[in-house]
Amino acid sequence: MKLTILFGGASFEHEISIVSAITLKDKLSKFDLSFIFCDGDHLFYNIDSSKMKATTFSSGEHKKMPQLTLTNGAFVQKNMFSTIELRNVVLNLIHGADGEDGTISSLLDFHAIKYVGPRTNASVFSFDKRYTKYLCKARNVQSVQYEALSKNEHQNISMPYPIIVKPASLGSSIGVSVVKEENDLDYALDSAFEYDANIIVEPFLEGVKEYNLAGYMANDKMRFSIVEEPQKDEFLDFEKKYMDFSRSEQVLKADISEELVLKLQSTFEKIYRGMFEGALIRCDFFVLNNAIYLNEINPIPGSMANYLFKDFATSIEELASSLPVSKKIKISYDYIHSISSAKGK
Amino acid sequence: MKLTILFGGASFEHEISIVSAITLKDKLSKFDLSFIFCDGDHLFYNIDSSKMKATTFSSGEHKKMPQLTLTNGAFVQKNMFSTIELRNVVLNLIHGADGEDGTISSLLDFHAIKYVGPRTNASVFSFDKRYTKYLCKARNVQSVQYEALSKNEHQNISMPYPIIVKPASLGSSIGVSVVKEENDLDYALDSAFEYDANIIVEPFLEGVKEYNLAGYMANDKMRFSIVEEPQKDEFLDFEKKYMDFSRSEQVLKADISEELVLKLQSTFEKIYRGMFEGALIRCDFFVLNNAIYLNEINPIPGSMANYLFKDFATSIEELASSLPVSKKIKISYDYIHSISSAKGK
Repeated sequence: MKLTILFGGASFEHEISIVSAITLKDKLSKFDLSFIFCDGDHLFYNIDSSKMKATTFSSGEHKKMPQLTLTNGAFVQKNMFSTIELRNVVLNLIHGADGEDGTISSLLDFHAIKYVGPRTNASVFSFDKRYTKYLCKARNVQSVQYEALSKNEHQNISMPYPIIVKPASLGSSIGVSVVKEENDLDYALDSAFEYDANIIVEPFLEGVKEYNLAGYMANDKMRFSIVEEPQKDEFLDFEKKYMDFSRSEQVLKADISEELVLKLQSTFEKIYRGMFEGALIRCDFFVLNNAIYLNEINPIPGSMANYLFKDFATSIEELASSLPVSKKIKISYDYIHSISSAKGK
Repeated sequence: MKLTILFGGASFEHEISIVSAITLKDKLSKFDLSFIFCDGDHLFYNIDSSKMKATTFSSGEHKKMPQLTLTNGAFVQKNMFSTIELRNVVLNLIHGADGEDGTISSLLDFHAIKYVGPRTNASVFSFDKRYTKYLCKARNVQSVQYEALSKNEHQNISMPYPIIVKPASLGSSIGVSVVKEENDLDYALDSAFEYDANIIVEPFLEGVKEYNLAGYMANDKMRFSIVEEPQKDEFLDFEKKYMDFSRSEQVLKADISEELVLKLQSTFEKIYRGMFEGALIRCDFFVLNNAIYLNEINPIPGSMANYLFKDFATSIEELASSLPVSKKIKISYDYIHSISSAKGK
């Protein structure tokens, strides 16, 4: 099966997208893969598989490679005397802005290019943590209580310390701080506002268990990965997460009851159905006093959470063969015709 | 001031977008206008101002006009020996799908083209009426109670008749029915599901007053139109609304107290701020027993609700000069450099 991996993007997570793409080159070696790099200026490059290493991009060498433009149904490479069209299903692997905020999905939808990844609605509800809270509320999924703050508006925080301060719309722990006392608050707010004009504040929960679960829908059935209990530092900083994006060894199942696994799966499905079709997502949950809280939705998880699946390549193949189809709207000019003919009389 | 009006789109409201654009050609005659038509296949055409009449499009004559493609900062027309770039601010006048669902906003943002219209988040929250309800709840704005139904899932309706049945994501009354008794329900559901896989059902409120208010933000201050009490048929059907999109005469102010006007404005601002910046929107309200309910957000109202503004052209000029600026993300390769050099040792 042919598959195009689209990576890069004008995002704070640009580098980890490169790492993800390099990791997937190995994990998806049974596919006939091509690679499209989106640079920080939104130019697309066709990257030869042999050049898929980090220094190709950090050195700027990618700029010597053929550029691509978008047309109906394809990425196109125009050569002197010929045109090459890449008509494959695209795997959207652009983490953060562009890839996860609805921009790339809209671009691909507009050009009628099939892709694995969140559609635009799903992107908006997962990219901004405030909107994820709205979704949880509407779907009766518990999430941690929060307060939202905006840059340039003085607002007080009413919850007790310790708290966790996060930019509303970034993943990979960028700009995130745990604040233990009021003295440290200003610095944490400044760090978070560096990255986003909106931030959220949540209580830092002691004694919480964390579980990650990935999944996707194929042929109208949910398929789930194993549940992982992630390495529990206070939280992963960017450098650790960065290394995390190159993970490729399957991890061990969390040692939890079958009952809890089923509960996590049914909570996942409540969030997924009618929203994330076409995407393989990872949901990060908290469990505290037997209650499940959705912490975060990763609609394009690092290296696609390949390490949680028994047979990752087959999962991607199944998902890529079961993508949502949007009905084409037929344009008619009935009203204009009827009004023109009425006027003509 | 130069301004490009973008209209058409692959949408059930394709025709009314054409009518809107023709209406604005007159209303914005003090601008140096250009016109870009997006056809049902997502091709862009540069339409000469003299050809801005409905039959240009219904007859297919537009296909003889120059095609445009998107590049960083501009729509581009490639001629045999030259290239013309349209670098103006764009007024997004594509009603319904494409224009109001986040597709066009993403496309313009990706290409760094400035535009008047809702950004992608704002589009998602206003295009689907279910998500508008989520937004209302989060911002403490009252909206009418509702039930959501999905195609292919049997669900009962628990509210008493009469009810109003609407596709979740269409404007202009397309697919909308008032249902007075259970016998008529199936037909109404079928009509609505013709247009959308999701529909909402609301009680049909007797004795409700309807008020429309348009507005936008410029230089961090809200600017409001007059409040209109729209013509009150049971509801406007598509053909009546279609004619409505060509309205250009300023309407009369609703005969309501200054107090109610201020309440409508403050409700409008609660919805607008932090979401609709860059757009001129129209909010349609219900008032019942002194309570205000948000009925619908039109993020690209028909003919931009020009008939509600005293000096519409100046309003558009003010808005176009005060558009949100997105911070460009600088790409660095710090992590790749540090890892490569560590490996090199």
